[in-house]
Amino acid sequence: MARHIVSAYDADLEGLDRTIAEMGGHCEKILADAFSALERRDAPRATATVASDTTIDALERRLQEQAVQIIARRQPIADDLRHILTVIKISGDLERIGDLSKNIAKRAIVVSQEQPPKSLVSGIRHMTEYALGQLHDVLDAYSARDPEKAMVVWRDDEKIDLLYTSLFRELLTYMFEDPRNIGMCTQLLFGAKNIERIGDHTTNIAENIHYLVRGTMPDGERPKSDETSALASKPDET
Amino acid sequence: MARHIVSAYDADLEGLDRTIAEMGGHCEKILADAFSALERRDAPRATATVASDTTIDALERRLQEQAVQIIARRQPIADDLRHILTVIKISGDLERIGDLSKNIAKRAIVVSQEQPPKSLVSGIRHMTEYALGQLHDVLDAYSARDPEKAMVVWRDDEKIDLLYTSLFRELLTYMFEDPRNIGMCTQLLFGAKNIERIGDHTTNIAENIHYLVRGTMPDGERPKSDETSALASKPDET
Repeated sequence: MARHIVSAYDADLEGLDRTIAEMGGHCEKILADAFSALERRDAPRATATVASDTTIDALERRLQEQAVQIIARRQPIADDLRHILTVIKISGDLERIGDLSKNIAKRAIVVSQEQPPKSLVSGIRHMTEYALGQLHDVLDAYSARDPEKAMVVWRDDEKIDLLYTSLFRELLTYMFEDPRNIGMCTQLLFGAKNIERIGDHTTNIAENIHYLVRGTMPDGERPKSDETSALASKPDET
Repeated sequence: MARHIVSAYDADLEGLDRTIAEMGGHCEKILADAFSALERRDAPRATATVASDTTIDALERRLQEQAVQIIARRQPIADDLRHILTVIKISGDLERIGDLSKNIAKRAIVVSQEQPPKSLVSGIRHMTEYALGQLHDVLDAYSARDPEKAMVVWRDDEKIDLLYTSLFRELLTYMFEDPRNIGMCTQLLFGAKNIERIGDHTTNIAENIHYLVRGTMPDGERPKSDETSALASKPDET
């Protein structure tokens, strides 16, 4: 793909990809840590996880500065320019994934004072594991410039939506059964919604890989199964 | 600020700003329409509002293509490059504001079958009006390249957070009082959360204006008052 022979320039571009890989690794860790703190009701761990998001924010800023310097110094065209702009977009999605994970950790601090039912925690675990797998695969697809693998991630996001919709219904049922669950369930509801949105950012990254390699966005509408914003408000009526 | 004398180039850059202004106008409209559909329990209007988000998505794509073409053709440096990259970032935030407004409209379709209490709707109206004012001001600040005005918006986002925290407590109280309200209140809770996040994207735009004009991000941490992720789960314990 490279149409230049300046090796320092190649090193610049590889530096961007290394920073993306580093950000991606931190994103996997912060999401896993946030869920772990939630599951173990471990407030100190949750607090440390909240603090760790600053690393991801700092990497995003460094990456954007690197990108701007490369554009200014190398005046890239065509493929290289597309590469650099893709890196900027992907870093924005990773930064949001870090933010959403941080927010899960904040909610874990509150939930640590409660006794969330095992089936709800297990539902959130399924969502987290699936989202982590998707994130891992999309980072692999970026590093291998593999648009087919990226498209598998893109299509499979529907499964996170299905897990979310099912958990949403279960959470509402718990609230109906005992109003004392409402506060805790609201925290878990937002936590689950954050994971669903992490899935959306992961598909954004997949789309950008497709664009980077093929020069176009993926065809058609992505399959979506988060129906919770269209669910009739009362579970017993659905 | 311009250090070039190529007038076709100036026209290119002005074209980017016109597209930003156009996207911004659509964002103000879709948010106002989504709330109006919610308040009037007008499902057809809500459905039309959901559909209207495609215009904003299309404008974002057009703007990004314009930006890539300008970088490739003009090989901008320094201020112009910063201008173009800022435009790409702002368009990403506007696209998200469109998405979040679309999601409010989807929830308005569900809520149209319910009788939400006036005080809740009025709470959401206050949030919407404040968010619309902030969005309007930040678009003005961009068009005038006015970092002071942008910083007023940045600092004032705290007021949306306070409105959200207060509404969050009220929504939880309604759910406690009568479990039949849980489904509807959950929809309104996510609707309110969307407006709070629209505020966050508006402050991102303000930060980018500061960066564009001053070359640095604003100093210090932005004041934040969304405490709902740290609220004890049971309202009666807070």
